[in-house]
Amino acid sequence: MKRVYMDHAAATPVPKQVIDAMLPYFDEHFGNPSTVYDMGTKVKQVIDEQRAKVAKLIGAKAEEIVFTSSGAEANNLAVKGAALANRKKGNHIIISAIEHHSVLNSARFLERQDFEVTFLQVDEHGLVDPERLAHAIRPETILVSIMHANNEIGTIEPIPELSAICREKEVIFHTDAVATVGNLPVDINELNVDLLSLSGPSLGAPKGIGALYFKRNLRLMPLLHGGIQESGRRAGTENVPAIVGLGTAAELAAEQLTHKVEKVQGLRSRLVQGVQDRNTRAIPSKGFLVMQVFVSKP
Amino acid sequence: MKRVYMDHAAATPVPKQVIDAMLPYFDEHFGNPSTVYDMGTKVKQVIDEQRAKVAKLIGAKAEEIVFTSSGAEANNLAVKGAALANRKKGNHIIISAIEHHSVLNSARFLERQDFEVTFLQVDEHGLVDPERLAHAIRPETILVSIMHANNEIGTIEPIPELSAICREKEVIFHTDAVATVGNLPVDINELNVDLLSLSGPSLGAPKGIGALYFKRNLRLMPLLHGGIQESGRRAGTENVPAIVGLGTAAELAAEQLTHKVEKVQGLRSRLVQGVQDRNTRAIPSKGFLVMQVFVSKP
Repeated sequence: MKRVYMDHAAATPVPKQVIDAMLPYFDEHFGNPSTVYDMGTKVKQVIDEQRAKVAKLIGAKAEEIVFTSSGAEANNLAVKGAALANRKKGNHIIISAIEHHSVLNSARFLERQDFEVTFLQVDEHGLVDPERLAHAIRPETILVSIMHANNEIGTIEPIPELSAICREKEVIFHTDAVATVGNLPVDINELNVDLLSLSGPSLGAPKGIGALYFKRNLRLMPLLHGGIQESGRRAGTENVPAIVGLGTAAELAAEQLTHKVEKVQGLRSRLVQGVQDRNTRAIPSKGFLVMQVFVSKP
Repeated sequence: MKRVYMDHAAATPVPKQVIDAMLPYFDEHFGNPSTVYDMGTKVKQVIDEQRAKVAKLIGAKAEEIVFTSSGAEANNLAVKGAALANRKKGNHIIISAIEHHSVLNSARFLERQDFEVTFLQVDEHGLVDPERLAHAIRPETILVSIMHANNEIGTIEPIPELSAICREKEVIFHTDAVATVGNLPVDINELNVDLLSLSGPSLGAPKGIGALYFKRNLRLMPLLHGGIQESGRRAGTENVPAIVGLGTAAELAAEQLTHKVEKVQGLRSRLVQGVQDRNTRAIPSKGFLVMQVFVSKP
């Protein structure tokens, strides 16, 4: 039986080039980047080079990237970190009803911390209506979190429209771009967002690494307290090999993006056509992902 | 110049055997363990095998181990997770004044959440006095966190004595054993603790992986909300290669522990003797680590 793997939104194999880049950081260059001698400081420099590569992929500056252990952690840091650090300004946040569990359950955690959460319903295509968002914003709203593309149905949300509404009302805007970074062109300036989460495995880096873009000067409460790694935004010894994996994958993704988008769109059209030709139920295709044969849980 | 590396408490090279065990999980067995098809379920099984290996090293059961992204995260989850989940019973916690920053700053975070924290002073050898601990415990004390061995001065704390006091008064006891697991025999039953943190890099696993032992039925609030990975105690796709690295390293550590302890003790004695023979200032050596030539910050 020929196996066709169609769950790249849940996991991807790491390319050889990325593995090769990581390998020396397990045993040869194994220094702790927080130490003051050359074995550590050299590794610290390598981390900052990777930070610049990840920043470049999404049009950000290196100092606006914090490495996390996953896209889920980036979402937790964005939603809980921004809400808890800015609660003096208000206690209301808004998310869409189809956010990833890491955003959804972070919001539910905030409800238990006396925040109020509005869950915006979406239309039959999974789209958030900008007008509905505008109406939901109150004087005490401090944060809105709407995903860039849904990882199960593929809908791409109208982020620039949604973020413009928030910018005008001085509400922090976060987007979970785990499904898109590395798969579609993503630029924080075009999206006009304050916070953007991405995940390593979505772009060819290994599991165990993600990143959060945050606009400079944005107040963010750390999730992990301890040392002053990541400019005090995330404690714990840096996962150097995985960070090198993410930097390398980000560079490759930038080079291959145009080709990849064309290839995946071609595959999508072929799949839709094939299914329709066989007279089975048509698949809605508002987004860039047509379907997932196996839906990952949770 | 011959380089002598003396900062294994800050970082260690990953042995070839551990790297080799991890490699297939980057590209060959890359499935997401939360999926329901065989590529995922097989990997899920591998994770549970590693969990059993880590548990065995410290005398625990597999289901009492939660994987984290670092020792620092394990400390955050233990201190903040246990305090926040049990605050109905009281709002007072006790830590020693020489805890790692990840425990210290987790406690300071709790102070800002209306907890009271007692910082127990230590004697000139860095030792916590059990009597002083007994006096510090109040009716509203819910958690005590004292490290197993200090990562900078090497002092080994009298954990069984300290934990017995807490057990009697029904106070949760956590120990940060990042400096000892893999370097000294550590058994959760002998130490008689409810929570114990360990770090991958301390025992030959790569950076980016750690674990927390928790006694069954202990209430713990997750740090990372989202999916139901790690029995709902930590959301985010499991870092499969690093988990395999930790399991393999734990197995190796168990085999090599007796030899390693003897070897390090020999090196310590030789170093102390050498320094004393040269008439420089003697080094206190209450613990198993004599000194670190370079002190890591933070």
